[in-house]
Amino acid sequence: MLTYLLDQRGHRPAYEYLSCCLREDILSGRLSAHEKLPSKRSLARQLGISVVTVQAAYSQLVAEGYLRSQERRGYFVNPVARCLPAASPAPLLPAPLAPPCLMDLRGGSVEGSRFPFSLWAKLMRQVLTQEGPALLEPVPFQGVPALRRAIAGYLYRARGISVHPDQVILGAGTEYLYNLLVQLLGRDKVYGVEDPGYAKIPRIYRACGVTVRELPLDCHGVDPGALAASDTQILHLSPSHHYPTGIVTPVGRRQELLRWAGQTEDRCVIEDDYDSEFRFSGRPIPTLQSIDADQRVIYINTFSRTIAPSLRISYMVLPSRLLERYRRELGFYACTVTSLEQHTLAKFLDGGGFERHIGRMRTFYRAKRDQVIQAIRQSPLGPRSRIREEHAGLHFLLELDTRRPDREAEALAAQAGIRLSFLSDYTARPHLVQPHALVVNYAGIDAGRLPQVLELLAPCLL
Amino acid sequence: MLTYLLDQRGHRPAYEYLSCCLREDILSGRLSAHEKLPSKRSLARQLGISVVTVQAAYSQLVAEGYLRSQERRGYFVNPVARCLPAASPAPLLPAPLAPPCLMDLRGGSVEGSRFPFSLWAKLMRQVLTQEGPALLEPVPFQGVPALRRAIAGYLYRARGISVHPDQVILGAGTEYLYNLLVQLLGRDKVYGVEDPGYAKIPRIYRACGVTVRELPLDCHGVDPGALAASDTQILHLSPSHHYPTGIVTPVGRRQELLRWAGQTEDRCVIEDDYDSEFRFSGRPIPTLQSIDADQRVIYINTFSRTIAPSLRISYMVLPSRLLERYRRELGFYACTVTSLEQHTLAKFLDGGGFERHIGRMRTFYRAKRDQVIQAIRQSPLGPRSRIREEHAGLHFLLELDTRRPDREAEALAAQAGIRLSFLSDYTARPHLVQPHALVVNYAGIDAGRLPQVLELLAPCLL
Repeated sequence: MLTYLLDQRGHRPAYEYLSCCLREDILSGRLSAHEKLPSKRSLARQLGISVVTVQAAYSQLVAEGYLRSQERRGYFVNPVARCLPAASPAPLLPAPLAPPCLMDLRGGSVEGSRFPFSLWAKLMRQVLTQEGPALLEPVPFQGVPALRRAIAGYLYRARGISVHPDQVILGAGTEYLYNLLVQLLGRDKVYGVEDPGYAKIPRIYRACGVTVRELPLDCHGVDPGALAASDTQILHLSPSHHYPTGIVTPVGRRQELLRWAGQTEDRCVIEDDYDSEFRFSGRPIPTLQSIDADQRVIYINTFSRTIAPSLRISYMVLPSRLLERYRRELGFYACTVTSLEQHTLAKFLDGGGFERHIGRMRTFYRAKRDQVIQAIRQSPLGPRSRIREEHAGLHFLLELDTRRPDREAEALAAQAGIRLSFLSDYTARPHLVQPHALVVNYAGIDAGRLPQVLELLAPCLL
Repeated sequence: MLTYLLDQRGHRPAYEYLSCCLREDILSGRLSAHEKLPSKRSLARQLGISVVTVQAAYSQLVAEGYLRSQERRGYFVNPVARCLPAASPAPLLPAPLAPPCLMDLRGGSVEGSRFPFSLWAKLMRQVLTQEGPALLEPVPFQGVPALRRAIAGYLYRARGISVHPDQVILGAGTEYLYNLLVQLLGRDKVYGVEDPGYAKIPRIYRACGVTVRELPLDCHGVDPGALAASDTQILHLSPSHHYPTGIVTPVGRRQELLRWAGQTEDRCVIEDDYDSEFRFSGRPIPTLQSIDADQRVIYINTFSRTIAPSLRISYMVLPSRLLERYRRELGFYACTVTSLEQHTLAKFLDGGGFERHIGRMRTFYRAKRDQVIQAIRQSPLGPRSRIREEHAGLHFLLELDTRRPDREAEALAAQAGIRLSFLSDYTARPHLVQPHALVVNYAGIDAGRLPQVLELLAPCLL
């Protein structure tokens, strides 16, 4: 006989408590397979509850598959494996904690406090009010038209490239867009990346399952001889400002790379224009995309670097021959950036806020770079180092007169709480790149503390 | 001799105009390779501008690679291929427009106007004020801790599953999470999906380059015999409510599928709990995850369906053995959901707003479902159709007494401006599923117009 103490159910509805008791009895084997349950009426009488409550509990267990009902015969227990109550979650290893750090020169962070957050928040409030519940509607898969128009306008003003808003595709970060590009261009293709270079790029391509070739650089960027000798089909480049060498690819080499791309139908160049905004003298270097007459170049850039890392808005500009394919084959993917953020960024671009911010940051970073360089020159490192490639981007190279191996210097610095990376950290072939070239990412550091940090650092490096 | 009319430069700075003229002359061949340019001083005198301006123009062209400077000898033109001025973008085919539509029963839309947008906007404004510029800081790769805690709490209350917040990983939509899962579980694995089923799932897996097997269903869900006979390693399921058949997999079958998963080390089940919130009688069906003692189940769900399609917040719950691998191999991916949206959703969940919204929507959709069913019963379709699987989710099946082939019925309806899909649209093997079973997605339709639409529709179907 089923005897459940319904007054022990607490705040739970009676039917829920009853179905829970029955479920446990089935799982523990107290009620066995094919056993007939008491009729609704008799169980209701026995437990002093209503027939409706028993009916609801039985129905729930029928829906879950613990019981079956047979017309005019009643309810029967289904065969179910005995099992323990729901497994409590296995103990988790805590997420690894980073050890304490005095200064991190490896980059990744930017000077967030300089962003005009109050303007951004104001625009966001405006969008919330103006767009209202329309913000809940699905976003077109390429992104909100207002933002695509704003980006096309910005690219024309700032980078001198004419693109149609329909060519622009928004995504939640460049990492996501790389994933989409592999699906668009093909997993059977061979992807060439710069070596040395930003390690995340080959890592993402490999996580996507494609073959990656690391292509060596000469002083103008990717070596065309090595490119031609490899089986690369898709070339991923940062011609405006290469990380971490700082190389700016000159126009002759750019034309040469485009000629390479034009030679067979399956070749294409991904122009990763990350960091191009922070050039400290003269105008930004024109893009590869702007001299591409052959529809070979996919332009890609992000606002995570120029606005804030937490803002996941990146975009790519597809040549029209690839745009058709994108729409046909990948247009089913929903846009990964929310409507609110897209509208806010469109206003920020259209109202000139973004360009004013970039202008201010350029001035700020130029002064910060000068301060960092001066601190290095006045430190014990000064007489035994040379600064290179400091005219653009948020990092430069510091060539050290030392014989200490890079890995050893990093380990010593880490013990002193200073995180470093050398040029040799950014390559698959450390023996082929210049040793003792420290990559100084200064955007996110506290420059005021630098003299003190350099005093500690010098004996680790020299 | 270089004669440029600097008064034609408009608002552009003189140095920029001069570098532009020089660039065009190099690209057009008027200045030839290796030609020496006039000295800065003489060109400045000749054009009536300052030496600094010429210096700036020359430096810009050196940076771009059009010129080289040789110490004490001056500036020389680099060899550069002649080319036309920047290609204007190729004409684009306009994005295809959908033809006019009277009603769309194929689904995808939800009743957005019922969402408490003003509460959502209020929470968002609160977060903007409370968190301030901290919103710009990078988000942990798994997502903001407050939201992961809120989701774990919600899952415990609403779905009866105990998960640790560290097991939760946020992403901008389930489509993105499927992409991550392929990278986590391996592209060399064989993925099994339900057939019939939601077409986007195999489509995404195939776009990710994996082998997909379509597994037939019986009346309890995936057929265990067919599963065992296939080489499937990763099984993607919606056991709480299968789309489009509406099948709820009973507990015995669930246990059977888990036993299958436990048989070899490489097997795993992705439990796609999409739509589980909208069950109209009784409690939600307990998850597969909650009876998984063996760390085989990855639970996945989204807020796009329950809040708004434009909100790209989905999550997955990894068993701890996969969590370690995720952190090691994919932890480099930045979180694709912004800080603002994560904090807002955390408040919405913690404050009970989400559960109140779900409760209201369940009542609303139940009434809408009843209205739709009544309209069908009173229409010319009434006597010649049966309604099935109407107890959960935002769709049901309508079995028609007709001999008209499904594709023909769809074409006729489309001509009348009504978009339909049949069960046979959701399968790779149309000959194996029941014909003439219309999938009625009622969530987003205007039920008031339904009687009139059904009058038009009946002759297309019968």
